[in-house]
Amino acid sequence: MTSGGRVERYILYYWPTIQGRGEFVRLALEEAGVPYEDVARGRQGMGPIEQLLDWEQALHPPFAPPVLRAGELLIGQTANILQFLGARHGLAPRALEARLWCNQLQLTIADAVAEAHDAHHPISVNSYYEDQKKAAIARTRDFRNHRIPKFLGYFEQVLENNAGRGGWAASSKLTYVDLSMFQLVAGLRYAYPNTMKRLQRHWPRLIALHDMVAARPRIAAYLKSKRRMPFNEDGIFRHYIELDEQV
Amino acid sequence: MTSGGRVERYILYYWPTIQGRGEFVRLALEEAGVPYEDVARGRQGMGPIEQLLDWEQALHPPFAPPVLRAGELLIGQTANILQFLGARHGLAPRALEARLWCNQLQLTIADAVAEAHDAHHPISVNSYYEDQKKAAIARTRDFRNHRIPKFLGYFEQVLENNAGRGGWAASSKLTYVDLSMFQLVAGLRYAYPNTMKRLQRHWPRLIALHDMVAARPRIAAYLKSKRRMPFNEDGIFRHYIELDEQV
Repeated sequence: MTSGGRVERYILYYWPTIQGRGEFVRLALEEAGVPYEDVARGRQGMGPIEQLLDWEQALHPPFAPPVLRAGELLIGQTANILQFLGARHGLAPRALEARLWCNQLQLTIADAVAEAHDAHHPISVNSYYEDQKKAAIARTRDFRNHRIPKFLGYFEQVLENNAGRGGWAASSKLTYVDLSMFQLVAGLRYAYPNTMKRLQRHWPRLIALHDMVAARPRIAAYLKSKRRMPFNEDGIFRHYIELDEQV
Repeated sequence: MTSGGRVERYILYYWPTIQGRGEFVRLALEEAGVPYEDVARGRQGMGPIEQLLDWEQALHPPFAPPVLRAGELLIGQTANILQFLGARHGLAPRALEARLWCNQLQLTIADAVAEAHDAHHPISVNSYYEDQKKAAIARTRDFRNHRIPKFLGYFEQVLENNAGRGGWAASSKLTYVDLSMFQLVAGLRYAYPNTMKRLQRHWPRLIALHDMVAARPRIAAYLKSKRRMPFNEDGIFRHYIELDEQV
């Protein structure tokens, strides 16, 4: 869509101070090399997001950010946005079976991300970490010992099954799934450095994929730019010393 | 696909003793009126599922059930399966924007379902409810007081925004999203009868949708059949008196 001669530009609605789930969308937009406005980080601040979350005002209101505006389309839910961007910008294969497989992997990544969040907020998203620390310690122990190995072991096997096709997860080319696997590994390393240091030798293909994604020219430029926010303790992947393995 | 003259028949791989996430797929298959084999409930028992979960054996292994086999396609992740079935059997609109909207709503339902599960297992899926009861009581209080009203209030608003189109959530016809909203309401009523009795007057359109779905001839027949398992305390929606609101 063009308006008054301007080329369509994506608008991303996401919290301005964290990577969070929005980062999976940012990575896809960066790798695609398409212009986008990370709206809450600009002059308008939180206003446009607050407007979106006023559910009575829109026909298709989103439950929560991230949300992507593409011309007249307003798309919510991370995996849904990535499916859309993947098809539009060559970040996903075209055949039905391969598209379903990408979406399936992305939804499994989303499950892992939700668990990474709940590890530090096992009781309520509406109360502080400090007020649920004891439960967070218990949940994180399970997450580190059982869930991280299960999820990353699964993705390692997926990569092994696709071996000989360039090291990508779901195709013979990079897809949005590879970008998300990069982010998952980066986030878990930030949150649990000791755990990941000890365990990551079990997932050589996944670590290699992380490095391949980080070296993509557009991603490398993005990661060095100010557009890439640092991880922090307001996001999904949080580093609290007491939640990592003690060495 | 036909093989030796047989018409293709879907195979559903899901745990044989619970509704769980498989139920969202069962409802779509039942409403579509297509033959399917709920494989673990038949003579073969758990063998075929165990085989699927041997990740080294398949090119596209699923992380977890439910999984649907459609000829040579093997599809995992509930929302992914529903997107596929919706397009194939008239349970989803055809236009891009409407398809994205259905998927977005389904992913939001999936988020609510995951939280309904974690309410009784806030610390670990690998240990018993009894061993995390105290945390479950705290998490469920938050789930009942904040999350159920937020999710169901959102879906009520979605229905209101689509009012005048027959009472369905995402279209002027039934979609797989309506079937899933039915199941979410049914599950929450089973798990939290006191809470739902007190709160449901806030969501008249959602309750009406639940009743409309239950009255669909194929769904009504299914709900009366032995194919519909009762809710129980091994599934996602569990009724523990201590987790419901006390009256």
